[in-house]
Amino acid sequence: MALLLDASDRPLRHRIADAIVGELREGRLRPGDPLPSTRVLATELKVSRGPVVAAYDELAAAGFIETRPGSGAAIAAGADRAARAGALSSVDPMEPFPTGPPRPARSQARFDLRPGRPDIGFLDQAAWRRAWRHAASQVPTTDISHGPQHVRLRQVLTDHIRRSRGIALEPDDLLITPGVSATLQALPAALGLVGRTVAVEDPGYVEAWTAFSDNGSRISALPVDEDGLDPSTLRRRDAAVYVTPSHQYPLGARMPVARRTALLEWARAADGLIIEDDYDGEFRYDVSPLPALRSLEGADDHVLYIGTASKILVPTLRVSWLAPPKHLREAVRVELERRSLIVNEMTGEAVAEFIANGSLAAHHARAARTYAARRARLVAALARHLPDHRLSGVDAGLHVVLLLPDDVDDHEVSMTLLRHGVSVNPLSAYCVEAVRRGLVIGYAGLSESHADAAVRALARGLT
Amino acid sequence: MALLLDASDRPLRHRIADAIVGELREGRLRPGDPLPSTRVLATELKVSRGPVVAAYDELAAAGFIETRPGSGAAIAAGADRAARAGALSSVDPMEPFPTGPPRPARSQARFDLRPGRPDIGFLDQAAWRRAWRHAASQVPTTDISHGPQHVRLRQVLTDHIRRSRGIALEPDDLLITPGVSATLQALPAALGLVGRTVAVEDPGYVEAWTAFSDNGSRISALPVDEDGLDPSTLRRRDAAVYVTPSHQYPLGARMPVARRTALLEWARAADGLIIEDDYDGEFRYDVSPLPALRSLEGADDHVLYIGTASKILVPTLRVSWLAPPKHLREAVRVELERRSLIVNEMTGEAVAEFIANGSLAAHHARAARTYAARRARLVAALARHLPDHRLSGVDAGLHVVLLLPDDVDDHEVSMTLLRHGVSVNPLSAYCVEAVRRGLVIGYAGLSESHADAAVRALARGLT
Repeated sequence: MALLLDASDRPLRHRIADAIVGELREGRLRPGDPLPSTRVLATELKVSRGPVVAAYDELAAAGFIETRPGSGAAIAAGADRAARAGALSSVDPMEPFPTGPPRPARSQARFDLRPGRPDIGFLDQAAWRRAWRHAASQVPTTDISHGPQHVRLRQVLTDHIRRSRGIALEPDDLLITPGVSATLQALPAALGLVGRTVAVEDPGYVEAWTAFSDNGSRISALPVDEDGLDPSTLRRRDAAVYVTPSHQYPLGARMPVARRTALLEWARAADGLIIEDDYDGEFRYDVSPLPALRSLEGADDHVLYIGTASKILVPTLRVSWLAPPKHLREAVRVELERRSLIVNEMTGEAVAEFIANGSLAAHHARAARTYAARRARLVAALARHLPDHRLSGVDAGLHVVLLLPDDVDDHEVSMTLLRHGVSVNPLSAYCVEAVRRGLVIGYAGLSESHADAAVRALARGLT
Repeated sequence: MALLLDASDRPLRHRIADAIVGELREGRLRPGDPLPSTRVLATELKVSRGPVVAAYDELAAAGFIETRPGSGAAIAAGADRAARAGALSSVDPMEPFPTGPPRPARSQARFDLRPGRPDIGFLDQAAWRRAWRHAASQVPTTDISHGPQHVRLRQVLTDHIRRSRGIALEPDDLLITPGVSATLQALPAALGLVGRTVAVEDPGYVEAWTAFSDNGSRISALPVDEDGLDPSTLRRRDAAVYVTPSHQYPLGARMPVARRTALLEWARAADGLIIEDDYDGEFRYDVSPLPALRSLEGADDHVLYIGTASKILVPTLRVSWLAPPKHLREAVRVELERRSLIVNEMTGEAVAEFIANGSLAAHHARAARTYAARRARLVAALARHLPDHRLSGVDAGLHVVLLLPDDVDDHEVSMTLLRHGVSVNPLSAYCVEAVRRGLVIGYAGLSESHADAAVRALARGLT
């Protein structure tokens, strides 16, 4: 066998093995062919025997050759096809290497006013870096069966939630999860809601319905009015209800306390579960935020509270928290664990530090001021250029809804607007059975100097 | 109305609103009761009118009071029940605050030899911190509809995968996901495998079966032998097969090239999909790693490749990657997006930096040396103290399997061992239909000085 080794500086054993695979590929060696002994081949190649033994080991481990007791090595069945299919017996070890320039960002409408996009432009970069530098010193855990415990984050959040949302929790009440949507997906299995009915707001948060229905729950759509969901429309067959009482998504209603207590009474009477998604309870403008539903007396046993850093901080961070009623906590924890829904400890620690050192409070104050100014400018521009259209949900959150008559195809309108450089969401996209038409207009990223131009473009597209 | 304001330093408007809610709670105010005008109440309280107007606004927004045109404000229906249920009209803004000490870690067996737990103790802390500090300067994206693009990580991984696993990919072929398990859960819906059959290895990776079956696929269990899964056992009705060819989980077989090419031939003939989970292809001891199945010629169209940082780096990091065949990439991307399965950009950038600056290669070299030494010590101790037991899967990975006779209840054995201070997994826990008994023993965290004591404890429990 006349082997030709390649001239690279790769280890000799790889070059020998590759040369044999090359012979196979070219058909000069076939299954069943005997190989020379390692001593003979080493002599032929004028190399020491060690690399040849290593090459044979490598080829045997990869299945190219077989070593039969008493009769030396031979080419294995199928080795020729494998070689022709491009198989090699080894790969090189890892090395560092340079990387190229980043790709350009994808193109967008001139005014991207789709909701749910907080502006992270005024994030205090220095504070952000400080928090992550602090997190960098965090030692990762090896306890993969339970995931990171996020001890500090849960302590910090307990206090944050008590102060900002009025809920008295213990750190052990909280579970940390990578996002609201993933959390909702785990709830049907965790809470025995498979095959049972979960009532949702209509119009409402589409990801919530799909999270429930994709995971085995039936959906019952309850219409919302200017006070949000009406608890008197709940039925006994409803096992749970998903609500956004702080700021109904997307219409913006703030559920009055009378409905909150009525909701709680339904939960008590029907043994139903209230899933409270407090996704942006922090941003209110004319009035102070109302405490969360979960803060009501007796709510601990009936309200599963969910909060998130997506709206108050950074949407792609993927840090959310939930506080199930105590008797459901373990079931939820186990299901989250089963789905590997964990947040890595560096991310958790960065958020904990950002909250604990006051950066979140400062960021929140700055964000609230900025959003309030943007909201005011947008609402003024809408009043100026579209005086005949009613608005919904201007008190809070990061978007308003421009209501349209029921016979208008708002999807069509949004497509027309896109051609005018304005990207907004049609209200009908948030509806299950309800017929509500309008445009959901996010203003978090709309600077005051652009508001007038954006609304003029919007008005042009609407008329 | 004689209101008594609390003596705190909270804003006057909150104290006024709280006092009115207090009157409601105590029953001194009831639904329908008129409220004094803001001017009258301001005079009574000897405060300016502004805070009273703000308090009424707050109470109205919370639904405690109603303002009727022409007749002033009055207590709203249900406000009394709400007040008694503990509702307040506002919460205080966020403030920073101190946090307490961490909780103690939970207790464990003296020798935790459960598999899947890489030792992060020899992670280069300085390099780790450097990577995260670098990531700290990463500006988060607002493009939440598509999530972070991980441009640099995908570039870096492309090179890493080419060098370490022999696969030629473009950065655009790769998708970044938060963990293998979550990724597998998305595949049935993404790939049209709902209601169809996915073949899996038996014994095999339990999380994979449950990911497929929980999400609508049927499971077909194929027995594995010392060469892993046998492609000739695949049937035409199998729409896909999930395999761990680099290191069959948990038995440790390395699939020989002949079977790899046969597997690819099945995929071509049956138009089947091969899901290659390359979870720890990097750790091999006696021989160089075999390139991934995906590296075979013609595999691009038939093999969905999955890799992860869990085993080579940190299990709780939650960074995995997958390269679907090109024609399936968009469907997978959309489904991952729909499930919000994203990795935040700081985490992605930290991993990219750790790979790009050579820290991963250094860590990997250190880890491989350490694990090889631990493996050698464990295998030697097993040979010494349990000479009659066969081992499986000693060539690679981070665990070995101690085989037991088929009539032994290995679950029972593992419970007995736990009482002897040794935590291992029974092999039967990895079986669907197969009857295989043994103990899956992870050695990643078993230092050389403890190996003998651990195996002696194990031997005591076994006899």
